[in-house]
This record gives sequence, C-alpha cells and structure tokens, in this order.
Amino acid sequence: MTPPEPSPSRPLAGLRVVDISTYVAGPSGGMTLAQLGADVIRVDPLGGAPDMRRLAHNARGRSLYWASLNRAKRSIEVDLASDEGRDLVRRLLAAPGDENGILLTNAVGAKWLASDALSAVRPDLIEVFIAGNRDGTPAVDYTVNAEVGLPWITGPAGIEAPVNHVLPAWDFLAGQHAALAILAAERLRARTGKGQSVTIYLSEVALTTVAHMGFIADAAVNRRPRLRDGNFVYGMFGTDFGTADGRRVMIVALTERHWKSLVELSGVEAPVAALEAALGVSFGDETTRWKYRGVLYDLIRPWFESRTLDEVSVALKSARVLWAPYRTFEELVNEPDSLLNRSPLFADLDHPGIGTFPAPRSVLDFAGADDSSRQPAPALGQHTDDVLRELLRLDAATIDDLHARGVVGPSTGGPAREG
Amino acid sequence: MTPPEPSPSRPLAGLRVVDISTYVAGPSGGMTLAQLGADVIRVDPLGGAPDMRRLAHNARGRSLYWASLNRAKRSIEVDLASDEGRDLVRRLLAAPGDENGILLTNAVGAKWLASDALSAVRPDLIEVFIAGNRDGTPAVDYTVNAEVGLPWITGPAGIEAPVNHVLPAWDFLAGQHAALAILAAERLRARTGKGQSVTIYLSEVALTTVAHMGFIADAAVNRRPRLRDGNFVYGMFGTDFGTADGRRVMIVALTERHWKSLVELSGVEAPVAALEAALGVSFGDETTRWKYRGVLYDLIRPWFESRTLDEVSVALKSARVLWAPYRTFEELVNEPDSLLNRSPLFADLDHPGIGTFPAPRSVLDFAGADDSSRQPAPALGQHTDDVLRELLRLDAATIDDLHARGVVGPSTGGPAREG
Repeated sequence: MTPPEPSPSRPLAGLRVVDISTYVAGPSGGMTLAQLGADVIRVDPLGGAPDMRRLAHNARGRSLYWASLNRAKRSIEVDLASDEGRDLVRRLLAAPGDENGILLTNAVGAKWLASDALSAVRPDLIEVFIAGNRDGTPAVDYTVNAEVGLPWITGPAGIEAPVNHVLPAWDFLAGQHAALAILAAERLRARTGKGQSVTIYLSEVALTTVAHMGFIADAAVNRRPRLRDGNFVYGMFGTDFGTADGRRVMIVALTERHWKSLVELSGVEAPVAALEAALGVSFGDETTRWKYRGVLYDLIRPWFESRTLDEVSVALKSARVLWAPYRTFEELVNEPDSLLNRSPLFADLDHPGIGTFPAPRSVLDFAGADDSSRQPAPALGQHTDDVLRELLRLDAATIDDLHARGVVGPSTGGPAREG
Repeated sequence: MTPPEPSPSRPLAGLRVVDISTYVAGPSGGMTLAQLGADVIRVDPLGGAPDMRRLAHNARGRSLYWASLNRAKRSIEVDLASDEGRDLVRRLLAAPGDENGILLTNAVGAKWLASDALSAVRPDLIEVFIAGNRDGTPAVDYTVNAEVGLPWITGPAGIEAPVNHVLPAWDFLAGQHAALAILAAERLRARTGKGQSVTIYLSEVALTTVAHMGFIADAAVNRRPRLRDGNFVYGMFGTDFGTADGRRVMIVALTERHWKSLVELSGVEAPVAALEAALGVSFGDETTRWKYRGVLYDLIRPWFESRTLDEVSVALKSARVLWAPYRTFEELVNEPDSLLNRSPLFADLDHPGIGTFPAPRSVLDFAGADDSSRQPAPALGQHTDDVLRELLRLDAATIDDLHARGVVGPSTGGPAREG
C-alpha cells in the first residue's frame, strides 16, 4: 500500500486516528487533525452518540453543533455494546503500519477501551484519553469553570453572582492539547518504538491555564482579591465605548504609541496633560493608565458617544490604537465587512441534510494550503463499509453479514444516503 | 553530538525552538513545548520585551504574569535592533541538525524575521508566525473577541452591553495551535526535507472556534438571534444555584440519569411529574429540559437555598449529577479541597526574585511523567552564554566581547544572578 503523498496543504496525510469521543473536547481535537490531512475515523454507537442530537438544530431537527464539530472526518457506526462490535474497533486499532494505532477518546468509563485492556491489541498503541477530574469524577466545561475563579471576576462591577463564559474554552483547549499529545506521542514512538498512554483532565486544563495567566501567583503571593471590573482589561488601558447609533467598540491601548493616538483622536490632549501635571504621573506607563482607567474612560467617552459607528470607524482606521466593533452572531454572518466575510478561510458549503452555511478550512495556514480541508461532517456511518474494507480487508459478503446482524450500521445495509 | 535520550516524561527532548514572542499566545505555545521537554529559547531584546513588566506584579515590581507564562524555557538577551544581534539569532536558527531550525514568533512586523529574509538562513526552516488579522492590521484577544458575537450573549439576561471574557481564550488557543503547527511541520519536514511557513491569525482562531460550536451555522441557517441567558447552559439543563451561606454551585444535568438524580435529590419528583403530565412533555429529553429551564430552576432552587455549601456538597457527592462549587482565586488557592490543592500537577515552587507559589507540571500527563517539567521561568538573559557556547560554539573571549559591546545581555557580562 503506497502511503498518500504528503503535500504542504495536507501536512498530516497518512496519519490515522480512531476517534471515539463526544461533545466538544475530543471531537474538536480530532477535527483539527482531520483538517491537517489525518484520516480521523469517528466511531459512533448504532444510532449515534448523544451529542448527535444537541442543539442548535436546523428546521428538520438535525444538529448544527455536531455538523460543525466533526468536519473532515470519516464516520463508522458500530454496535459498541456487543463483543463483536468492540472487536472490530480493536482490530482497527491493531492495524499495522507506523501511522496507525492511535486512539483519541473521552470514554474513560469504558473498560473495553481502558489502557490495560488495549495493551494486548498493539504494544505500541498511542492512547489519548480526555477525562473530567483526576479522582475519577466526571466534569464538564461549565463545572470546571466554576472552580477556577474566573466567573467571579467576569461581568459588570455591580453584579453579585458569578458570570459563566459561554464559549467552552476548557473543552477547546483540552481538544488542542489532545491533538498535540497525539503528535508528540507519535514523534516519540517513531524514535523509540514505544507507545504511550496520555490522560488529559479537563479540570487540570483549566487550572494550569489560570496558573499560566498569573492568577494563582497573584492570589498566593499578593493575597489581595482580583476585582470584577467590567470590560476593562487588567493592567493596561482597554475597555468598550458606546456610539451615537447604539453600537459598541472595543479599544485597547497596549503601547504608549496606541495611547497617544487614542488621546489625539478623541481630542483630550489638554485635559490629559493637565491631569498628568496635577497628579504628578505619566499616562505613558501602562500601569498608570490602568490605575486611572476610570477617569480616562470618562474623559474619552463623549467623543465616541457623539459619533456613529461609521464615523468612529473611519477615524479609528487612520489612528494607531487597537480597536474592533462588537458584533452579534447575526451581524458577524450578515455584515459585509465582518471578520467572517473578510476571511478567505470561510466559504459557503452545502452540508447534506443540514443546510448551506459558511465553513472554514484549517486555521493552520500552511504555505500553499488549499481548500481541501474545508469538508462537511460525514453522515452517520457514511464510511463504515469503506473503513472495514480498507483497514480490515473484509470482503463484501462479510460486511453485508455484519450489517444484517446489526453489528455495524447504518441499518440499510450500505452507506447512509443522507443520515 | 549525542542527542539527549527521549524519556516518557520528556517526549520532545531534543527539539529546539527559538521563541521570539511576547504576551500570551506565543509564550504559552512555547511553554507547552518546553514542558514536554523541548529546548525552547526565548529571545528578548536588551532589557526585556514589554510583556516583562505587565501586571500583576509582586511587591518588588516583578511580573507574576511573565513568570507564569515562560516556565521551563531558556532565556537569552540580545540587541535585536543591531545587525550583529540579529545575525546571532539567524545563526541560532541556522544551527544544523534535524531538530533545529524552528522559529515561533509574533514579531510579524519585523522585516529581518520575515519569511523571505530567513529563507537563506536554512532552506528547511520552520517558521510559525502568530499575527492579528490577515489584512495586516494588529489585533489582540479583546478586540478579536468583540467581533465574534460571544460578548452579546455572555452575562445576565438584563444587561444591555456586551460582556467580555476575562480569560484570553483566543490567545491560549492560538498558542496551542502554534505548538501543534510546529510538531506537524516538523513531522512533515522529517518526511519531505522541506521547511514550512505557517501563519496563525488570532482573529481566525476566534472565528473558526465560534464556527466549530455551531454559532455561525445557527445564525446562517436559522436566522434567529441566540439570546443572552445568564448562566444557563444552552441546549440542556445546567445553571448555578445559591446556597444558604452565600456560596454558589454550578449544576449540569447532561444525561437523563443526571436529571433524575437532581430531581430526586431536591425532592421535586411530584411537581416535576405533574408538570410533565399537564404539559404533555418528558423532561427526560434534554431539549425539553432546556425549553422549560426557567420553571425547573425555580422548582429546584429552594432546596439549594435552604442548605449550606457543606450540606449541599455532602448530598451532591452521593448523587449522579455533575456539579462544582464556585470558587474565587483566593478560595482556589486557600481552600484545602479546591481543585488546585487536590491536583498532583501543582507543587509550591520557589521562583527566584518572584516568590513561592504553586506551579504546575505539564498538563499532558504522559505515562511515567515526573515533575521535571515543573520549572520556573528563567531570569532575563540567564542562558545567553550557555546558548552561544553550545549552539554557536563561541569561545569565552568572543562571548565576553559581545557583552562588552552590548550586543548581548545581561550587561553585567555574565549570566543574570537574579534579574
């Protein structure tokens, strides 16, 4: 079997990952690898895993969420409750070749997938597990997030309750860590011949990331609480302003040059200089700008509040401060100058049975990248027969028999026409 | 030169990355590789890049933020404004060997580091750039976040303004993508002999992630706005409850089993069954639970509000619903049963000149991982001499001369004692 020729746009061509994961973390990690050209085979139980039915749905009840998190993969549907179905999965993992024998899963409770059960399958197997907590208790992004401090400092200063994030950032970070773990383990296997078992705990992804930001050092060393502070960015001058037509704009003055540009733009050089003289400080220093963020905000805001977003945008485009208009999802999709509509990564793509909507190619823009990574999610079981034929060398009669006995799906006995 | 023996706990031992990046995205990506055993050499201009001085500070004005984002790296200090300093960096990148010749940077405006300028350095160079927007305009996490819709659906339902996230999730995701791009490109180089230039745009990291969640599909296909909804999790039953002693608890009923456990725990089987009968629905279905989340929340909350966190915790520990107490950063650091204090990844570590605080080893828990990845950040220029000697084979007299002429730092003429 000749391996596919790696091309710059398909840097992981040849690598094969068996992906038995659900919801966000595992599927997003697998998708990242799939978009880089790996053959990522998502394995679902008959009828699909529960995440196939998650909101948002289209008008026909199909999950837009699932379709968006499983692009560019192949799908096989197997009776994972049966010994025969489990054996098929084990045989996929046992497939010979340097680029086979890689499992990504969050099915940490499944004994048949546990590390000790699989060690006989292929001694150099690479297994990457995504779990909740190290003590064995389950966790999801939103429970983990509650524990790590951020909800108490998110949102307007007056609020007395925690404010959760909406983006499951811990899931996505765990997914990227899982993708990285697979490449790191495969690199090590190529050098040592040894497999690996790596477990990534969602709660530890959150915990370490919060530590990386210095939040834990600050609490441990300085012992003073970090305060909830609206949209002000900690440690510099950055916040949002309203415009005369009811829009909002985020402004960040990261450098002294940005700050001078913002002051000049909003015509407050004189009052800012008077304040500096009277206070004996320089707002050229980011920590000082942050300390006086309230008064500086109030000095600058009339300029924004007396102009429309269009007027503000024209002025900001020739300034040097960092800025962006806030957009709703609807504005992101519909406004011609939105990030989405300016990005060449996205193109309208027909997702069979789901609808037509903008889909991205890989965000990792390898030189010479083409659009081949912009593929829809598969229909459930769309590739069952192909995978059994290619990897396990099963013949048509054997595959038909597996369908007839309900060991694999779809139940029509052939690839799903639509799903 | 014998390469270091890869060990399970140092899976990337031997790989060398020249890291000329600042703030969060690049440094966090480089740190991830360093914690896996790569030799990540952070290159700073004389006196350090601006991120060295960012808040939070300790009492002596040293940045806890920088110290937390640059662990396990080596540091060299070079006059990057001079031709001679730039030439030293180019020579580091030109170092022979399969595992050299890798650049991670966000200095996209620096012409001397641009792809065409470096192509002569080593034809198979791997360059991973982290940039703001594809059109060349700069962007930071907080401006990017404004554009992708999330701030308008974050926070309590009554708020009329966008609510920013506090965690720079786009930065951290960009950093993980950068680490992944390096391993993918290095894998491809090992097969084809060819280098790569990969650019990751922060705004496209945000945009693609929002697309992966189905937000863009939902807006494009269904054309109805996603509503701001407090701490309710979209599409299932999950939200926070207050306790009698003023604490908060996050609860998620992801499965029907979780839901039944929550109903039983809070003693509302009868009213829930009565509602199901009267409405003609089953709350066994997650979409139905989400649709009726308001009334279900109000039915359940008295149970939480009449109990302390301790009482609630005892009951939840024997239930099957997903849950976690909210903690502030201070509670995370100080409460003995917090995630932090239960995690074996963390141990108190003395950071010279910074303080003693809990620091994590790599979140990628390779089998047999030890604590060698739990290292503090270097002092600025701590490894200048070592790196020049090892990689460029410079002798002591030449290195002394570079110090004396201010081409490299620290200016003491030797490694920083403390920084």
